[in-house]
Amino acid sequence: MSYSGNRIVTFEKPMEMRVNTFKFPELVTPQGKKAPHGVILKIVTTNICGSDLHIYRGTFEVPQGMTVGHEMTGEVIEVGSDVEFIKKGDIVSVPFNVGCGRCHNCKHMRTDVCENTNPDADCGAYGFNLGGWIGGQGEYLFVPYADFNLLRFPDKDAALDLIGDLTLLSDVLPTAFHGFAAPSWPAAPAYVVGESVLIFGAGPVGRAGAACAKLLGAGVIIVADFIQERLDLLKPHGIETINLSDGTPIEDHLMKIVGVPQVDRVIDYVGLDSRGFGADSDKIVENAVSNALLKYVRFGGVTSTVGIYCPNPMSMDSKNKQGIMDLDWAASWIKSPRLSAGQSPTANYNEALMRAILNGRMPYLSSMMNVKFIKLEDAPEAYREFDAGSSFKYVIDPHGMVPA
Amino acid sequence: MSYSGNRIVTFEKPMEMRVNTFKFPELVTPQGKKAPHGVILKIVTTNICGSDLHIYRGTFEVPQGMTVGHEMTGEVIEVGSDVEFIKKGDIVSVPFNVGCGRCHNCKHMRTDVCENTNPDADCGAYGFNLGGWIGGQGEYLFVPYADFNLLRFPDKDAALDLIGDLTLLSDVLPTAFHGFAAPSWPAAPAYVVGESVLIFGAGPVGRAGAACAKLLGAGVIIVADFIQERLDLLKPHGIETINLSDGTPIEDHLMKIVGVPQVDRVIDYVGLDSRGFGADSDKIVENAVSNALLKYVRFGGVTSTVGIYCPNPMSMDSKNKQGIMDLDWAASWIKSPRLSAGQSPTANYNEALMRAILNGRMPYLSSMMNVKFIKLEDAPEAYREFDAGSSFKYVIDPHGMVPA
Amino acid sequence: MSYSGNRIVTFEKPMEMRVNTFKFPELVTPQGKKAPHGVILKIVTTNICGSDLHIYRGTFEVPQGMTVGHEMTGEVIEVGSDVEFIKKGDIVSVPFNVGCGRCHNCKHMRTDVCENTNPDADCGAYGFNLGGWIGGQGEYLFVPYADFNLLRFPDKDAALDLIGDLTLLSDVLPTAFHGFAAPSWPAAPAYVVGESVLIFGAGPVGRAGAACAKLLGAGVIIVADFIQERLDLLKPHGIETINLSDGTPIEDHLMKIVGVPQVDRVIDYVGLDSRGFGADSDKIVENAVSNALLKYVRFGGVTSTVGIYCPNPMSMDSKNKQGIMDLDWAASWIKSPRLSAGQSPTANYNEALMRAILNGRMPYLSSMMNVKFIKLEDAPEAYREFDAGSSFKYVIDPHGMVPA
Amino acid sequence: MSYSGNRIVTFEKPMEMRVNTFKFPELVTPQGKKAPHGVILKIVTTNICGSDLHIYRGTFEVPQGMTVGHEMTGEVIEVGSDVEFIKKGDIVSVPFNVGCGRCHNCKHMRTDVCENTNPDADCGAYGFNLGGWIGGQGEYLFVPYADFNLLRFPDKDAALDLIGDLTLLSDVLPTAFHGFAAPSWPAAPAYVVGESVLIFGAGPVGRAGAACAKLLGAGVIIVADFIQERLDLLKPHGIETINLSDGTPIEDHLMKIVGVPQVDRVIDYVGLDSRGFGADSDKIVENAVSNALLKYVRFGGVTSTVGIYCPNPMSMDSKNKQGIMDLDWAASWIKSPRLSAGQSPTANYNEALMRAILNGRMPYLSSMMNVKFIKLEDAPEAYREFDAGSSFKYVIDPHGMVPA
Repeated sequence: MSYSGNRIVTFEKPMEMRVNTFKFPELVTPQGKKAPHGVILKIVTTNICGSDLHIYRGTFEVPQGMTVGHEMTGEVIEVGSDVEFIKKGDIVSVPFNVGCGRCHNCKHMRTDVCENTNPDADCGAYGFNLGGWIGGQGEYLFVPYADFNLLRFPDKDAALDLIGDLTLLSDVLPTAFHGFAAPSWPAAPAYVVGESVLIFGAGPVGRAGAACAKLLGAGVIIVADFIQERLDLLKPHGIETINLSDGTPIEDHLMKIVGVPQVDRVIDYVGLDSRGFGADSDKIVENAVSNALLKYVRFGGVTSTVGIYCPNPMSMDSKNKQGIMDLDWAASWIKSPRLSAGQSPTANYNEALMRAILNGRMPYLSSMMNVKFIKLEDAPEAYREFDAGSSFKYVIDPHGMVPA
Repeated sequence: MSYSGNRIVTFEKPMEMRVNTFKFPELVTPQGKKAPHGVILKIVTTNICGSDLHIYRGTFEVPQGMTVGHEMTGEVIEVGSDVEFIKKGDIVSVPFNVGCGRCHNCKHMRTDVCENTNPDADCGAYGFNLGGWIGGQGEYLFVPYADFNLLRFPDKDAALDLIGDLTLLSDVLPTAFHGFAAPSWPAAPAYVVGESVLIFGAGPVGRAGAACAKLLGAGVIIVADFIQERLDLLKPHGIETINLSDGTPIEDHLMKIVGVPQVDRVIDYVGLDSRGFGADSDKIVENAVSNALLKYVRFGGVTSTVGIYCPNPMSMDSKNKQGIMDLDWAASWIKSPRLSAGQSPTANYNEALMRAILNGRMPYLSSMMNVKFIKLEDAPEAYREFDAGSSFKYVIDPHGMVPA
Repeated sequence: MSYSGNRIVTFEKPMEMRVNTFKFPELVTPQGKKAPHGVILKIVTTNICGSDLHIYRGTFEVPQGMTVGHEMTGEVIEVGSDVEFIKKGDIVSVPFNVGCGRCHNCKHMRTDVCENTNPDADCGAYGFNLGGWIGGQGEYLFVPYADFNLLRFPDKDAALDLIGDLTLLSDVLPTAFHGFAAPSWPAAPAYVVGESVLIFGAGPVGRAGAACAKLLGAGVIIVADFIQERLDLLKPHGIETINLSDGTPIEDHLMKIVGVPQVDRVIDYVGLDSRGFGADSDKIVENAVSNALLKYVRFGGVTSTVGIYCPNPMSMDSKNKQGIMDLDWAASWIKSPRLSAGQSPTANYNEALMRAILNGRMPYLSSMMNVKFIKLEDAPEAYREFDAGSSFKYVIDPHGMVPA
Repeated sequence: MSYSGNRIVTFEKPMEMRVNTFKFPELVTPQGKKAPHGVILKIVTTNICGSDLHIYRGTFEVPQGMTVGHEMTGEVIEVGSDVEFIKKGDIVSVPFNVGCGRCHNCKHMRTDVCENTNPDADCGAYGFNLGGWIGGQGEYLFVPYADFNLLRFPDKDAALDLIGDLTLLSDVLPTAFHGFAAPSWPAAPAYVVGESVLIFGAGPVGRAGAACAKLLGAGVIIVADFIQERLDLLKPHGIETINLSDGTPIEDHLMKIVGVPQVDRVIDYVGLDSRGFGADSDKIVENAVSNALLKYVRFGGVTSTVGIYCPNPMSMDSKNKQGIMDLDWAASWIKSPRLSAGQSPTANYNEALMRAILNGRMPYLSSMMNVKFIKLEDAPEAYREFDAGSSFKYVIDPHGMVPA
């Protein structure tokens, strides 16, 4: 078999992505070091993520021409000399965080803060300016530390049959799960059974969060968003919804749904691109969801910030430009909340979630997620639709491997 | 309103229960101390438990004439002067463990080992010789420390409508849940999502264990029992079953179901009355399930012993009489298991599970549990049927309060 | 024995406290309800707390004439009719949070957010406008729910001998401990052994935090403050110190001490009255420590906010007045920290810490804390000295019961 | 530099060890596979462990001529082509468990049950028949998966200065720590502060357990053994001791020390070679300590079994030969204990403990452990002395690298 090139989606400028051709990947790190621990994948599916939208919009700053994509599932086509347990032909899920498996953080399954895969910060990922790892919205991908990083699907045929669910294991589903697990790390999610949970965001990761809440036995699950079409995907599955465009204050919705204006757990699956609430709903209010977490959590409750925050070059606000936000911190201190923020260590959760999927424990997942398979060349258009509020989870099928 | 007597089920001798009449309860402890912290309940429902069968069979020794029953739901009809938050007319679930809410263990929600409610051991319960608390398979019940112990149902009508599920909150459902939670105490159940779980026992608590496994997102859930009718209740809900009467070794079943002869987690919901496996299936083998836990758990897995073990006066075996058993302990040490044993602190779990039920998160529960409502006078016969392997969960309705 | 009055310290106006005489307490709640669950204490010791300074300075707003004091140790002199395990003559420590022991939060040992002892918010405490509970910097005190709330010292004579250490159990020591425990709640403090810990504040609670870090086996313990005399109390005990007045950036200190500019865990024991760092050290910068937590924690590290934040009526800044602060939240998100904020549930930790003290496991405690016993009438002057940066932990001995 | 051979201690028959010469190690696994992930160490120190005594006595069965030793510290002298972060010249501690860092269990830091380094069971170790890894009581050692397995000491000179403490990180100290951490895995040790802890065994691992109890802030620490000389090492450090030879029942000792006959936590650091208690103290009673754990733990307490249990070919008892023991399991069920058993995942704890040592947090360690450095050729004699009850922790210095 011989391969010549590798077409990959790139960021050109805010609101413009392209597909460009690069050379076929080698077992070499971004720093040019040989990587006998790595493999080359032929991409089976590669999803567009909400955090790709931050890049697309320019709110997460990256260089022109940078390759993107970090939610990959692939078939192993080349194996380095120090790879032992991943074999040619395996179908594997790639955690979006690049872990080395050899640093303190990775050894304790904190692959979200790997100390070795990004020379600039303790955090490496594909398709960002976080270590120089080539993005995976393309045809082929180099994955280092393959034995440590990759999740092998036990059965190839079953994997392709369930690819619409399994493709979610590279990021969106474990990231959503992290919203529940992070505050009690390293123990498992505490107290979720029966809880009232308020989720901000009905985009793919927010909907995956609602799916995780169901999986974990939450009581009342409430999802808030501005886009009715996204909320409608959740309603048939026993999820309560709040349309933030309807002018009714969130506390009034909560009173109606749970009888009190606060809930046990509030999770932010939106990040810094949020519109404001109420009178501010016609503009971006970067700290809208962050303050809502503190406002709507009960005394002694839990909050998680999964949506991305970063210094925002597009902001008009000089503080937001530097990553500084006004928070109702002091007003909320008396509530004594437990909090967490940041990326998910995907590898800590993906195997458990894979086993839940393969054993039929998330029958509602595909209906809630609404996956749409597209061709690689249609990716730039999919970015536009996704940005405009589409209710699809876009999944690129670059080689036409997804069964009809 | 005036009440004259209180009919309650009593243990007469092995294999014989009766309904006898006692005096109406007062706000007084078994030691004769006034209890302004207590309430009197009119019993709405009161279940027969698998541990009542240990009493019935004589394997858990109690005195002749002792009142039994520890799985009560009731309506508050009298309230002590130091009860503040429980009101007359409330419908409440009674945790089977009697907690004081004032000792070290209760303060840390270890109500299973309350230091004050039983002068002989750190463990008090209704309807056992564990502190002298009058049993609740009757018409009325005194409950001490009512504000601490009782779980109030938020809506009276909704409670009666769902009474077939909510009656399970006094013991069987939280006890089943404890099988998952105990090994990672005081953190929440760890690693259940996607796990393979092997449950011994398809009686009510074993079936409730399967329901909890579903609630917590377990992957493969396997229940083993000798009685096909009980296993049949589980099959429609995606539970794998092993009929221990079929002559096939358990490891062969596991190989077929999960591809390996061991699972992530094994739970004993049977206790000391187990029949042996294979060639020993025609007799009681007290340690059969205990050793099966150690045999079928994977390296690094988890086991829980929820089924009751105690010195067994009915045993032919002189060691078993003292509560001593042969265990494959040394052979299993190398597997490095996490283990737990003992009763559930019901109050730690019942509110979360109530909220899961009230919000429709356990739609499979009633079908798996197979509740049968009976009259108080039919209780002795129900013991006989339950002992003979009936697949019902018997629930006594002493006042005819359960809606048709 | 008969008692006539009760002298208690009161807040008059910013920078002025007085001792006024009130009537002798009764077993009655602030709402006028009889409290058979309560006791009356003769105060043995009652400490001045850093949070009393927030009242004194006016940054935590309370009404004129309000009684203060929430760190009490006392002798039981009167017992309600529903108190069973606390006896007349017992020497007891009073957790500063008023818990009911009967709500969801108290049952799960979240006494910091009791749902019943303050009608205005889920948080009750003595000597604040948090439920109307009379302050304890006085001669006598009413304590409700005595069996639940009080920690009994096992031996009266030993208790008085060690009173300088044991008096710390009502607040400052458990509160300091909470800084380590909160982020992994409900599990125990995770990963403290060997960790590098940066503590802001060398006042009493910060010094108690350093003592807890030692108790828990932390590796490098670093305490930062502006007052050298306070830091000097720590140095003989293997604690590294940073004098924030010295003009050297904190990161340079860290480089010198641990070789990197970040640590595993950062705890704020200061709160909203912090001076700024570097060029801003001549003024109050309310968010100085909060942002330092995010700046100096390593990727994947842990922060705790124990120091008090609240809407600050004394602030010149209109946002701070409402409890809103600028935080480097977005800039820090990528570090994926675990965080917590809020009050300590004292009762969750005080018994364990008492046993550590009574068994000689904190021999460094008294030297680090530097307790100074004073008379009740000297309390107003002690406030002035404490506010001016004294290195004493002031403990009022209102009846002269402390052995010489 | 060139090396010709490798002298290593071997097991010849029960009660006889030798030093034999083997060929110099290569970067090749026991199965003959090239290991670019491995390194060769020049051994700096290599300790004799209590579990080596099980081999020596024949109670843990191994083949004649097998190399032994699993507690190594070494200098890296050769590095495989896929080793990135461990460098030639580094001084490193070798965890006794051989982990691959690439299986499910290793990824979750359960290196005690690695799925890949032993083809016969999920458990690999040096110097046992657990995967064929060559023992390390010798001059040189091959270590696979070096980046994952090895703990690098940050400063070479400091490491040699503190080698008497740091040599304990390969097994005995983390193994002792595991006794506290295992029951609450994966969270940190819960509730140790202030606890009463009863430790069986004052051999090296039992003494290290006492040291860990101190490090974690335990209250009353009690160590029981038959050998006064070992107990005497602990007394100066505030440890209570019980000499099991003195004829006084353990419960009487406990009454005297803690006022009750039970404690919060009981840990077995002895294993299957225990002598009986009381009248049985002149013979081996394999289950003596196991039953003592269940007997002396309080209701709701915690037990850990760290001492080795295995099928014992030397036993006269036909059940013990198969690894089956009589346990008071049923009699203890009512106590509702949390339990754990098995090996320590050393790599999960060694870094934290190293940092505690390097920062001076265990000043009592060397005095309690009583390390004696010996030459390689004196190892067989050291086994005899250790077996006879010596109070030394024997540490072999095969190259004379330990500073005087």
